[in-house]
Amino acid sequence: MPRKPDETHDPSLRSWVESANEDATEFPIQNLPLGVFDRGDEEAVIGCAIGDQVLDLQLLSETGALDRDEHDPLTFALELESLNLLMALEPEDWSALRRRLSDLLREGNDELRGNAALRERALVPMDSVRWLPPCETGDYTDFYASVHHATNVGSMFRPDNPLLPNYKWIPIGYHGRSSSIVVSGSHVRRPIGQLMAEGESSPAYGPCRLFDYELELGCYVGGANGLGEPVTMDDAAERIFGVSLLNDWSARDMQKWEYQPLGPFLAKSFATTVSPLVVTADALAPFRVPRAERAAGDPAPLDHLRDEFDDASGGLDITVEAHLSSAQMREKGMTPVQLSVGSFRHMYWTFAQMLAHHGSNGCNLQPGDLLGSGTISGPERGSRGCMLELTWDGDPWATPPVSAPGTSRTPIMLPTGEQRKFLADGDEVILRAYCERDGYRRIGFGECRGIVEPAGH
Amino acid sequence: MPRKPDETHDPSLRSWVESANEDATEFPIQNLPLGVFDRGDEEAVIGCAIGDQVLDLQLLSETGALDRDEHDPLTFALELESLNLLMALEPEDWSALRRRLSDLLREGNDELRGNAALRERALVPMDSVRWLPPCETGDYTDFYASVHHATNVGSMFRPDNPLLPNYKWIPIGYHGRSSSIVVSGSHVRRPIGQLMAEGESSPAYGPCRLFDYELELGCYVGGANGLGEPVTMDDAAERIFGVSLLNDWSARDMQKWEYQPLGPFLAKSFATTVSPLVVTADALAPFRVPRAERAAGDPAPLDHLRDEFDDASGGLDITVEAHLSSAQMREKGMTPVQLSVGSFRHMYWTFAQMLAHHGSNGCNLQPGDLLGSGTISGPERGSRGCMLELTWDGDPWATPPVSAPGTSRTPIMLPTGEQRKFLADGDEVILRAYCERDGYRRIGFGECRGIVEPAGH
Repeated sequence: MPRKPDETHDPSLRSWVESANEDATEFPIQNLPLGVFDRGDEEAVIGCAIGDQVLDLQLLSETGALDRDEHDPLTFALELESLNLLMALEPEDWSALRRRLSDLLREGNDELRGNAALRERALVPMDSVRWLPPCETGDYTDFYASVHHATNVGSMFRPDNPLLPNYKWIPIGYHGRSSSIVVSGSHVRRPIGQLMAEGESSPAYGPCRLFDYELELGCYVGGANGLGEPVTMDDAAERIFGVSLLNDWSARDMQKWEYQPLGPFLAKSFATTVSPLVVTADALAPFRVPRAERAAGDPAPLDHLRDEFDDASGGLDITVEAHLSSAQMREKGMTPVQLSVGSFRHMYWTFAQMLAHHGSNGCNLQPGDLLGSGTISGPERGSRGCMLELTWDGDPWATPPVSAPGTSRTPIMLPTGEQRKFLADGDEVILRAYCERDGYRRIGFGECRGIVEPAGH
Repeated sequence: MPRKPDETHDPSLRSWVESANEDATEFPIQNLPLGVFDRGDEEAVIGCAIGDQVLDLQLLSETGALDRDEHDPLTFALELESLNLLMALEPEDWSALRRRLSDLLREGNDELRGNAALRERALVPMDSVRWLPPCETGDYTDFYASVHHATNVGSMFRPDNPLLPNYKWIPIGYHGRSSSIVVSGSHVRRPIGQLMAEGESSPAYGPCRLFDYELELGCYVGGANGLGEPVTMDDAAERIFGVSLLNDWSARDMQKWEYQPLGPFLAKSFATTVSPLVVTADALAPFRVPRAERAAGDPAPLDHLRDEFDDASGGLDITVEAHLSSAQMREKGMTPVQLSVGSFRHMYWTFAQMLAHHGSNGCNLQPGDLLGSGTISGPERGSRGCMLELTWDGDPWATPPVSAPGTSRTPIMLPTGEQRKFLADGDEVILRAYCERDGYRRIGFGECRGIVEPAGH
């Protein structure tokens, strides 16, 4: 059953970490996202963001400040250098940790605040830490859950057949490459690959010309099912550990040439960037919304992809934004330009549906597995989550659609006078996300950043 | 540069392990395949097959019987419960291990033979061991490298467009699911999934009806390249650690419904079976053959997928066979029926080309990564490597092709009178492979077995 808002979400709660009480913070005491960091010393520990600080949970656990029994599985889980063991526990354990952290950091609680020696070691300024990927991801799967994105891209790649007959029945997804998942801030090298240029009769091997980002959210899987044991919708809601930002970098020209008949491969496998902080399912409870309405005439999901909880609150109202700064803009100290803003609430499929579908055949989903949502594009032009769609002149609902990748594109104008149809070397893409709702504190996801490096050996 | 036959391949070499000298053995001293096993005690160790015995390499390493310095990386590598660390070393290290094992097991060498206490602990009867997967596979990729298979299947799934324009330019592949890789002998449950039956307008969720196997070889990757560092053909030959059998179980009805536009997903992710023993690239050196000739008019591979070594000896002459026994046949003590026999030498792309292509965009390939070859089908009907092709009436070269999955199928007759168009519950699929060449000892791959269990929760 989906988690519900409780007193840890009370907007009047304040923390003795003063920066957590500022209006602008992404990390008030109502958020408490988790990640893995080090202090530059290669000793990775699990941390929780609070205001402009990160709380070292390993240290708290070791010193008994979390009040846990030494045989408590949570104690072991917090001593790891990744979130995997925590993800392997039960939703009750995740909630217990949240409640304890909320309590410990609350204004008026002197347990940690009053222990200066421990407090000074445990609270680390966020701008001094180095973030690492939050967990080891055994398998990474990327979905395609925005019907707007699927329709737009389908119109370009298959003008005669944009949205395939299966789209409204199953959350389409494919296996991605887990070894090339990198954390925000890692540079991403422009890939080299085979490209078949328009009008040519043979391909050439060279640097990608149509380099793109994709604005996505990633869902981290908790718990495990044995191989051969199908996952149900009831299970699925319990197995969403948390959500972070994800940039599914895409080489559109390589993708167009390679993707038939077995799907995207090298056009995606060179890098996927994740934000370091995982916003937990508990933190997201107040921002659950009904699943996006299906258009008239659309089929209802089959039973194995539907339950009343998911219908009522499987959607998530998470605002997502993409921003861009070129090397020139950064030299001149200019603010990044916003490329798009949209909401995850418009997705055709929920994370629970993606997770249930993934495990419906008995595939064993493991703690730390990552499910990308697919590009989050909404119904308006300004909410398109990648450059392929943003700079495209075609109207996805026109018949027949008018353009193919690389043609008929309206460039994005940058404040330096530079233009972009796709990403140039030196461009930095910055993804952001947050949740807002009347009666609740705004919570943020932090950032997912990456600078495009030139191709080369 | 590809490895060449040396004196470890000398067919006159005999072992003091007598069973290794028998004509029928798959594991003469010229083979020396590696795997991971336990004695039923959950203490997994690396082993080498010799005749009907397995040699415990961890024990040999610990006791100094391999004559390695304790700081030698090979010493650490052999103390692991998987081959990953060995795979991370250099081809010179792999060859050194082979030479040392060949020496130690050779008739006339009394070092181990003469040490009864050690010998009795180190040599374990193969029929008493429990095999485990040979390594942890971070990422599993499945290719599609038989042009015969691609043409046959393409004819069924896309009658108007069987072989797509990219096929002869790039080794088509897609990411597979690594969590569901299981070792030979594991039962495989028939998956449940969404199926769109012929003539229906909406799909149903139920057990797969068109359950199939795929006869493949798997290539284990050795060494590593950093993210963003493209792999070249020169690198690729050095990074093939070894080869084993692989069964890419496939739910054809689920596959047909789901695979557009992002490729196979749940139709494959429920299980992939590997054989436990990895036949090393060194052991395969005598069986290298020229890369399969391309048909007149076919393009030459682009430079990044071609080098003279691979042209001359990138092919592998490995005979591959699929066998089937039904539950009834096993009850009656009947021998499995042979479904197909073919050779890996007919593949359109070599493992080095697959590996180089995979890393050509800078994707970081890691020790233990597994590359499936795709179904090994040859030019003749009897060499088709899956039931989808075997029971199909259509002529792949007829225009237009005539049948779709599930229709126009000629069943396979079993000696019990049973018939099969696809796999039934209780069926066991047994894959085998071996290499033979005049002037060399025959070497085998062991078996890759799996019994189909009924669907169910």
